[in-house]
Amino acid sequence: MLHNIAVLTSGNDCPAMNACIRAVVRTAVHQGVHIWGVHNGYKGLVNDEIEELNTRSVGDMIQRGGTFLGIARSGEFFEEDGRRQGYENLKKHGIEGLIVIGGSGSIKGAATMSKEFGMPVIGIPATIENDVWGTDYTIGSDTAANTVVDAINKLRDTACAHRRIVLIEVMGKTSGWLAMTAGIAGGAEYVLVPETKSNIDQICEEIRADYAKGKKYSLLVVADGALKGMGVTTTELGKQIQEKTEIDTRVTVLGHIQRGGSPTVEDRINASMLGEKAVLAIINGKKDVVVGFDTGMVVEIPIDEATNNRKTLDTEFIRLSKVLA
Amino acid sequence: MLHNIAVLTSGNDCPAMNACIRAVVRTAVHQGVHIWGVHNGYKGLVNDEIEELNTRSVGDMIQRGGTFLGIARSGEFFEEDGRRQGYENLKKHGIEGLIVIGGSGSIKGAATMSKEFGMPVIGIPATIENDVWGTDYTIGSDTAANTVVDAINKLRDTACAHRRIVLIEVMGKTSGWLAMTAGIAGGAEYVLVPETKSNIDQICEEIRADYAKGKKYSLLVVADGALKGMGVTTTELGKQIQEKTEIDTRVTVLGHIQRGGSPTVEDRINASMLGEKAVLAIINGKKDVVVGFDTGMVVEIPIDEATNNRKTLDTEFIRLSKVLA
Amino acid sequence: MLHNIAVLTSGNDCPAMNACIRAVVRTAVHQGVHIWGVHNGYKGLVNDEIEELNTRSVGDMIQRGGTFLGIARSGEFFEEDGRRQGYENLKKHGIEGLIVIGGSGSIKGAATMSKEFGMPVIGIPATIENDVWGTDYTIGSDTAANTVVDAINKLRDTACAHRRIVLIEVMGKTSGWLAMTAGIAGGAEYVLVPETKSNIDQICEEIRADYAKGKKYSLLVVADGALKGMGVTTTELGKQIQEKTEIDTRVTVLGHIQRGGSPTVEDRINASMLGEKAVLAIINGKKDVVVGFDTGMVVEIPIDEATNNRKTLDTEFIRLSKVLA
Amino acid sequence: MLHNIAVLTSGNDCPAMNACIRAVVRTAVHQGVHIWGVHNGYKGLVNDEIEELNTRSVGDMIQRGGTFLGIARSGEFFEEDGRRQGYENLKKHGIEGLIVIGGSGSIKGAATMSKEFGMPVIGIPATIENDVWGTDYTIGSDTAANTVVDAINKLRDTACAHRRIVLIEVMGKTSGWLAMTAGIAGGAEYVLVPETKSNIDQICEEIRADYAKGKKYSLLVVADGALKGMGVTTTELGKQIQEKTEIDTRVTVLGHIQRGGSPTVEDRINASMLGEKAVLAIINGKKDVVVGFDTGMVVEIPIDEATNNRKTLDTEFIRLSKVLA
Repeated sequence: MLHNIAVLTSGNDCPAMNACIRAVVRTAVHQGVHIWGVHNGYKGLVNDEIEELNTRSVGDMIQRGGTFLGIARSGEFFEEDGRRQGYENLKKHGIEGLIVIGGSGSIKGAATMSKEFGMPVIGIPATIENDVWGTDYTIGSDTAANTVVDAINKLRDTACAHRRIVLIEVMGKTSGWLAMTAGIAGGAEYVLVPETKSNIDQICEEIRADYAKGKKYSLLVVADGALKGMGVTTTELGKQIQEKTEIDTRVTVLGHIQRGGSPTVEDRINASMLGEKAVLAIINGKKDVVVGFDTGMVVEIPIDEATNNRKTLDTEFIRLSKVLA
Repeated sequence: MLHNIAVLTSGNDCPAMNACIRAVVRTAVHQGVHIWGVHNGYKGLVNDEIEELNTRSVGDMIQRGGTFLGIARSGEFFEEDGRRQGYENLKKHGIEGLIVIGGSGSIKGAATMSKEFGMPVIGIPATIENDVWGTDYTIGSDTAANTVVDAINKLRDTACAHRRIVLIEVMGKTSGWLAMTAGIAGGAEYVLVPETKSNIDQICEEIRADYAKGKKYSLLVVADGALKGMGVTTTELGKQIQEKTEIDTRVTVLGHIQRGGSPTVEDRINASMLGEKAVLAIINGKKDVVVGFDTGMVVEIPIDEATNNRKTLDTEFIRLSKVLA
Repeated sequence: MLHNIAVLTSGNDCPAMNACIRAVVRTAVHQGVHIWGVHNGYKGLVNDEIEELNTRSVGDMIQRGGTFLGIARSGEFFEEDGRRQGYENLKKHGIEGLIVIGGSGSIKGAATMSKEFGMPVIGIPATIENDVWGTDYTIGSDTAANTVVDAINKLRDTACAHRRIVLIEVMGKTSGWLAMTAGIAGGAEYVLVPETKSNIDQICEEIRADYAKGKKYSLLVVADGALKGMGVTTTELGKQIQEKTEIDTRVTVLGHIQRGGSPTVEDRINASMLGEKAVLAIINGKKDVVVGFDTGMVVEIPIDEATNNRKTLDTEFIRLSKVLA
Repeated sequence: MLHNIAVLTSGNDCPAMNACIRAVVRTAVHQGVHIWGVHNGYKGLVNDEIEELNTRSVGDMIQRGGTFLGIARSGEFFEEDGRRQGYENLKKHGIEGLIVIGGSGSIKGAATMSKEFGMPVIGIPATIENDVWGTDYTIGSDTAANTVVDAINKLRDTACAHRRIVLIEVMGKTSGWLAMTAGIAGGAEYVLVPETKSNIDQICEEIRADYAKGKKYSLLVVADGALKGMGVTTTELGKQIQEKTEIDTRVTVLGHIQRGGSPTVEDRINASMLGEKAVLAIINGKKDVVVGFDTGMVVEIPIDEATNNRKTLDTEFIRLSKVLA
């Protein structure tokens, strides 16, 4: 059994990363294992910003957004020398295993270090885009979806008052999960996602027809990766729609508020369960896996499989959104 | 395939019942089936408060708490004559199947009518207590858990300011799910649930020891069914704890605000999925089942099995709460 | 005393317009006066979209964002012929006075009609920018300020996690009230407002010095009118700051979510008080005034004075923000 | 000019006490004055729990509920010997003036010490009940009103679903401000306050008549001091109303969640203004006053006048609530 493990956060921050770190620390302490925190992600790993944590370190943390360990990109860690430096820093503290909380790309970085130098790594998927292969859920996605729906509710008020078309751009480079989930829950008329091609002309015709029948507004949720093929920004798309429909159209790019905020109950609970699972797995000799949920149960996915693939949207959702719209 | 179905809400209202009705109506319309709404639950069924619904009936509904169909207890429906009257009212409108949204008890009532008169019934589990057998999830439970955690956050502020012990009583007659989920997510020190016996003397000793070590407050979440065996109310328990610990103690009984509020994304999505599933099942000849989620997938549970048993708390949660506290 | 009055909303919608309409309607009914609602603002006035309202028309309205009467710009109303048409439509229904809920520009339009045709008009200031001359308060401003602070809290989480500089652009063409109020309440380091010239170079130097001392993030709130003189957008300013400070910088343009949302208690109460006051004033022969608050008391401002001037930020606030930052 | 001042919080905690302490500290530092914090209120004053504060002490504080200085009742401080001890502890640290943040009773305690030993005292009114004489506003009242309205919204959902009468008990021993403000803003049908006698029989008759006309629910907000004369608790009143109306009635006692939560913008801004004002006043030789708002402007009220009287509800509000109901 391992007796010294470390945890770091990497990639983009998201809600409940702190809840996950808290569970990692308290589970380790509960198991009698020393737990170390790496500050500022891979940059801190290369620069040896590593300190031991204890139960108090994570008090009053479960409800906080962001990550108290901090995150910073590291050019050096993309090079073998940088990764060696990180490995040696861990070894210097007697650390025998590393837990990485972040998205696919971030976990992949540690996986490479593991291959090169034999440091056991376990990844915990944390990204509001919920696009990590092999797991139904990623930390922060539930809070982000509720944040987007809150914004949709506010935009509906003003859309309805002015009988406008409103486009709201949300995060989702390759996966439309956040856009689709928030779109269905927010009662949006259309959701544009990277997984399917949208016919703007047809949408405009439908909207015009709906307005002719007395509809007061129309809400479109646009994943920021959905327009890649179309070569327009969401703002430009808004202009096109206004020209085609001759209906006043507004665009809101929601931006970074999607990453912040106090986490929901689901994110706190799931982040806690994954944090505990990761610690129990790594101290018992598991290595190079990502812990996640598959049909509701905690599972382990080989780290290469999880990081070399990208999860896309369940087509069930796309169908459901059309039935309910 | 059926061409006329009805939907009613029964038992205690909870968040996302409206989102579920909306999905039932829109799925039926999408399938070309007539959908009828029964107002005021079983009382309205006996009194023939039945009208046809359409897509417009459920516009601007997904975000609303409560149930626009209303709920009312009916003494008559407990008698066979009352149930016959309800059955005949449905038949009078040409209705061939009934969807009931509510808790176990409510679904059981319709199941009895189904047995007696052959009206196909499908139940959709909706209760903030998440205690329906055979399903991991019941409609409204996620919103209620977030409402309780919001209250815990407010109580922590004042507990901490006055170095008090604070007890918060939440709903949970036979299941501690809501108390435990909110307790873990809210970072409560103790959670008292009906599934396990709590040792108050030991809790008091631990709290005294923690205060001696400088702890500033202690939060206990109490499911209202947890004290049944102890023959005290939560308010009386608070007095006992104050006497035993000699620490200022306060009790808040959260009450009916747990049942209200705009539903979370998870409740809106799940309520929509169960609503759609119930319609597809009943129009295709399924009968006398409850639709729910088992390890993340939509499943059908025989209605007697679902209503003659009561789900209790996953012991995994109890263990996790001790590790994280 | 007048026996028939009308109300319309104009300009940009904002929270608590519905609460104000509700108070106008209920006060009129309470006074035994017929109250008419003009749909879709001045466009509806010209097109005679006018119907009588009653207590039921405004049930379940106080908590809703937007305006159920709707708002639409009208080119015609900018012409005397259009205003004459609007005047005649009011007369046709026997309406003797008009209450306009909106910003300065909107109230000015009705004031002109009043001068030309003698229709008594009373304005109720409603704009999230709180820039109407002669009143300390405008409807919607308190809710908008809370919405901005909620966004600032979310942005702080991610700014702190990544040690970033974050700029948030909020509404405020000529007045920095919203930016400054939310900036102080949100604990922002800097607030850029139209009323004062900001020295970007100095700000960048200060931020670099603060980071050198260990500061983890910096938040700048930018009123969208603050950069007019500088000839840059907030997005471009963000790029400049990143170049000058060599610190990762992000920009969020908050946009239309600032106009929506369920109103706060203060906005509901003040909107109700102003609505009641406007009705009592107009039915008792007052005309061509704007009702507002001066040092906490409801007052009447001559409509020309209120619409020909623009209120700017209390310098007291600018001073306070520097003390607290 | 004074060079050493102290601040303490006393009485019951409320939202934005931390925002006020923050403004006191930062204003003092900005003025080059040493600022000391007394932990645990008067108990800490007697026990010399006093430490110097700086700008960092109040970082990340403006958004937090409660008070990081803590509050504790002190029997000793009710005695002259205890107050002398407190005075001597202040002197020992060279402290020349004391700022007390709390309700009337708390401020009175310091006023007595001031009379006896000549320590200059300035009070800052902080209580959710907004019942301090001479000021329109007390810290925390705006946040508490929004918390109550949030609860009313949730209770309306379930009241409407079940066609129930719902009573909600809120804080207000001698002043109905919180009940009335939240009642008007929440659209409650009735508000029971200590300032006026309520006729329960008449209320019951009106409710029965409204239900006969098709009303779906009725909400009563009850200030906990309103029933003193009637010799019943809110729970007992609920039973009486159910018997008299024969309509299903529920009671929720909101309790301590009213004192917690992250403060609203108005509370943060006003608490900051009062904190700054108190420091500027005391260091410039002002003593034995309470700082507050009168018709929107910051004013000073003689401490005896402020603490020997109790503000009651503006009758304007009572009238307005009847017009809008």
